[in-house]
Amino acid sequence: MKILIVGGVAGGMSAATRMRRLDEAAEIIVFERGHYVSFANCGLPYYVGGLIEDRSALLLQTPESLASRFRLDVRIDHEVTGIDRAARTVSVRDTVTGRISTEGYDRLVLAAGATTRSVLPAGSDVPLYTLRTVDDVDRITALLTEAAGPGGAVEVSAVVIGAGFIGLEAVENLVRRGVHVTAVEFAGQVLGPLDPEMAAPVAAVLKAHGVDVRVDTSVRSASAGRVTLSDGTDVAADLIIEATGVLPDTSLAAAAGLRIGESGAIWVDDTQRTSDPLIYAVGDGAEKIDAISGGPTRIAMAGLANRHGRAAADSIADSAGDSLAGAPGVAVAAEPAFGVAIVGVFGTTVAMVGWSERRLLATGRAHRVVHTHPSDHAGYYPGAEPMSVKLLVDAATDAILGAQIVGGHGVDKRIDVIATAMAGGLTASALSRLELAYAPQYGSAKDPINQLGYVADNLVAGTTRSLQWHELPAALAAGETLVDVRTAGEFAAGSIPGAVNVPLDELRDRFGELPAGSLVVHCQVGQRGHTAARLLSQLGREVRNLDGGYKTWAAGAAALAASPRAAVASAPSAASVLPVSPSAPALPTERIVA
Amino acid sequence: MKILIVGGVAGGMSAATRMRRLDEAAEIIVFERGHYVSFANCGLPYYVGGLIEDRSALLLQTPESLASRFRLDVRIDHEVTGIDRAARTVSVRDTVTGRISTEGYDRLVLAAGATTRSVLPAGSDVPLYTLRTVDDVDRITALLTEAAGPGGAVEVSAVVIGAGFIGLEAVENLVRRGVHVTAVEFAGQVLGPLDPEMAAPVAAVLKAHGVDVRVDTSVRSASAGRVTLSDGTDVAADLIIEATGVLPDTSLAAAAGLRIGESGAIWVDDTQRTSDPLIYAVGDGAEKIDAISGGPTRIAMAGLANRHGRAAADSIADSAGDSLAGAPGVAVAAEPAFGVAIVGVFGTTVAMVGWSERRLLATGRAHRVVHTHPSDHAGYYPGAEPMSVKLLVDAATDAILGAQIVGGHGVDKRIDVIATAMAGGLTASALSRLELAYAPQYGSAKDPINQLGYVADNLVAGTTRSLQWHELPAALAAGETLVDVRTAGEFAAGSIPGAVNVPLDELRDRFGELPAGSLVVHCQVGQRGHTAARLLSQLGREVRNLDGGYKTWAAGAAALAASPRAAVASAPSAASVLPVSPSAPALPTERIVA
Repeated sequence: MKILIVGGVAGGMSAATRMRRLDEAAEIIVFERGHYVSFANCGLPYYVGGLIEDRSALLLQTPESLASRFRLDVRIDHEVTGIDRAARTVSVRDTVTGRISTEGYDRLVLAAGATTRSVLPAGSDVPLYTLRTVDDVDRITALLTEAAGPGGAVEVSAVVIGAGFIGLEAVENLVRRGVHVTAVEFAGQVLGPLDPEMAAPVAAVLKAHGVDVRVDTSVRSASAGRVTLSDGTDVAADLIIEATGVLPDTSLAAAAGLRIGESGAIWVDDTQRTSDPLIYAVGDGAEKIDAISGGPTRIAMAGLANRHGRAAADSIADSAGDSLAGAPGVAVAAEPAFGVAIVGVFGTTVAMVGWSERRLLATGRAHRVVHTHPSDHAGYYPGAEPMSVKLLVDAATDAILGAQIVGGHGVDKRIDVIATAMAGGLTASALSRLELAYAPQYGSAKDPINQLGYVADNLVAGTTRSLQWHELPAALAAGETLVDVRTAGEFAAGSIPGAVNVPLDELRDRFGELPAGSLVVHCQVGQRGHTAARLLSQLGREVRNLDGGYKTWAAGAAALAASPRAAVASAPSAASVLPVSPSAPALPTERIVA
Repeated sequence: MKILIVGGVAGGMSAATRMRRLDEAAEIIVFERGHYVSFANCGLPYYVGGLIEDRSALLLQTPESLASRFRLDVRIDHEVTGIDRAARTVSVRDTVTGRISTEGYDRLVLAAGATTRSVLPAGSDVPLYTLRTVDDVDRITALLTEAAGPGGAVEVSAVVIGAGFIGLEAVENLVRRGVHVTAVEFAGQVLGPLDPEMAAPVAAVLKAHGVDVRVDTSVRSASAGRVTLSDGTDVAADLIIEATGVLPDTSLAAAAGLRIGESGAIWVDDTQRTSDPLIYAVGDGAEKIDAISGGPTRIAMAGLANRHGRAAADSIADSAGDSLAGAPGVAVAAEPAFGVAIVGVFGTTVAMVGWSERRLLATGRAHRVVHTHPSDHAGYYPGAEPMSVKLLVDAATDAILGAQIVGGHGVDKRIDVIATAMAGGLTASALSRLELAYAPQYGSAKDPINQLGYVADNLVAGTTRSLQWHELPAALAAGETLVDVRTAGEFAAGSIPGAVNVPLDELRDRFGELPAGSLVVHCQVGQRGHTAARLLSQLGREVRNLDGGYKTWAAGAAALAASPRAAVASAPSAASVLPVSPSAPALPTERIVA
């Protein structure tokens, strides 16, 4: 059995090492077009920022270490340029010597990853980089060091194009290094996969750290250390980093006549097999199945690449049957993917899973929304940090369709718990009944996750009806009365235009002051609003609670102030519903120039 | 509708406030025998330690705040002394005036919590406290301040009896305050609900922080500032804190003839109703259903108390039917409980869920065990901290039966993910396919959770056979050869007696050196051992991998060195399998003197 693997990072190397553990006898050759295998691609931005100081920490394995441990034949600087399916061979070019050779296979695994396309206009002469390889970061750090001059005396400026997950990692690490950064984003908000009111606090964090954030903006030209933006302004830039997302690298597969899926990635079955049963594909180049829609999608995530690399090896071992001495490979069908993403931005953590409200609205899927603003742990224990949580729920089944969280400590925990609940098929209401580890430094007796479940449960039961921040204008236009049940002090410190203030603890006594007609109540985060809504409802009033309270409304207002396109929550654009990865949003085609 | 609630902390107050939100018209009276309601009982140790500085932070609500917000009639210093079920009344004693009164009810909720019994011999005169009420911590802090003298010049000593979850919180906070602490534990290890090799690192942490840890020990007598232990030694003690666990307070229920369950707690149905349909019970006094066995159990956890308090209110609203104007109470059947517990000890976090190996062995339930030692996040990103993870898996169904984790950052996240996976019915192997949020500061592309799943999957598939640390002596006695596949340097720094060293990367070449017969391989944490086992198995050898490697073996050896009773993993005692709470282990009856 001879197995060739194209690509030696996450998916390819997982396939190679698992294959060896399943089959000591197999001949396994890994071709990597770059100079490094199995490197820490997710660590690259942090090396640029100086947080990872030792460059060797990025290099997890070498061809030598893989040879001695796993008897792998790893060939770096070798690019596979073609597949002859009939002959069961690939053409390989040694990128150092230029020599072309041919290698036969019994099984072939494609793990070549993704590719980028530049959105920069032709003729630009400011140094341009992506942040994808060890070579990239070597070049970027060399340029930054040179531009800063002896002793770092000269201020260095950079433009980062694309304020998605990877773009923001680039931004943070450039700032960490003392670089002045302009973040240029074509969409109306940073972190496009999030809903606008969840992204708004992230933009505020960026600005608080001196980042010049430009949404609804693209680059018109770049020359002589200046970048001219679509709004006509120009900004200094010693370099440009493009983080405008990735596309699956399907060149080899397409040229070989393998089926390309609807998503634009290589079609695979649930054992990672392509339309040629001897050829497998894994990682960013391979199509995934979206767990929410059941349809094809693209998700560029290291975790999925690793998982599917291993699955491909299992599948190969299975398909080889008795020929693999002692290899009990148990191929497990790949499960649909939810798409889980996380990013740290200046101490704030942003995480999401599944679909956004924008995407649900765009596809017309009936859903419910829950916003909460809990603390990561008991408020009486020092160091509690606030977070804002959004949960998307199927209106018919109470299934969890997605979540978004922005905050400090504990955000990563809560998104992982929700992702696990989704994988386990728990309903939103069932989150109220989850037993989660509680001591006051770790959570609350009613954990933020339980709280989400309680709110969801109240919506299912009809105990409280809610409305979203972007639905408020229509309610007010229809003559509904907005009642702010916070204290007078909170009301004075900032209120929603048109609201009347009747503090919750006075509501029973002052009930008679409320005008006739439907009511919308709100508090700071939604909890007192719920109690008020229950009270008013039992007193015979038609009432809805503004979901997430003043805090969510204010975030939505900030999003709209930054860009009218933030209104997509109620009028989504087609671009916002592309089935793409949170970490690698697809490029709107009008931005692609090369 | 008139509802009386006995007990005004977690379960009782959750029932009261939910009841109000469901029924604005109901008359709701809460009787609390103490002076405080809805206080932060889980924060009490941290107030003693000075970490929570402001005493008022412990008092989350007052009778006044609950009256104005929820129109609750909260009567502190009122103890309910009897129930007349026929008359539907309770007798109440005002503990300040001594006045006795009678109050009628339509529904009664028992939320009186748990009680303790002292293990201290009669005649002891060292001040003795538990750590359960605001009064307790007021007295403890006053005594500590007085004993320390002006300027804190005098060293203060304390004995903490019971090294369970609450006992260790007491120990940590006394040390935080500068007190010298002796921790006295009747069992052979600290944190009895854990398996011994998982508890051993916790004992090491305690000792490293100057705590005098005494296992297999009890208190013989206590007088004149000295405590004499069962081993004949005596230690200084200005005070004793007993944290020997709690028992459900069933006095009222039993006297009223309500059914007491097999576990010794008040029997309830899945809507928290007792054997009297007008009386409900929630919290530490109420019986729970163990999710692993399906049988009755006791679990004393704030989260369950809150959940069941809310459920009781829902059930009352449902049972009242149309009489509750507008109350759409949706009673949800209480789900069985897994028992999730966590404790922080000097920066180390210890967490568990479900059953231990000891308990599985004792009940004869066929199971598999997985030990891993991952880092909380990618090793190349600064600040990664190690953790040790143990997973218990049903041998027949691959269901997750329990988990234990000890480490630094990220332990709380992983136990919550496992608890959620258990609630969602995911198999151990399915953990390998969970999508968890990954950026290098939060996790790994193969998260510790995924790694558990990979190991579990290999055990299901038979890819690798493993054995446990406590099974090694039998294997060696049977003539199996132990092969240490770590490097020569690792081997020299500490090895398992009888092991021969053949580093993994030399194993293919030195295969011929291995003696005939069955082999056991091991590395540091189990991963290289797995690769070695795969290699040797394919080369025709009978081989097992020592689960968790040298690290787990060394922890087990340390546990055995501290106490021969740590061997309970292979020969469990009856006491170790009582169906009790992780945070509140039942008292072995021989320890109870009053």
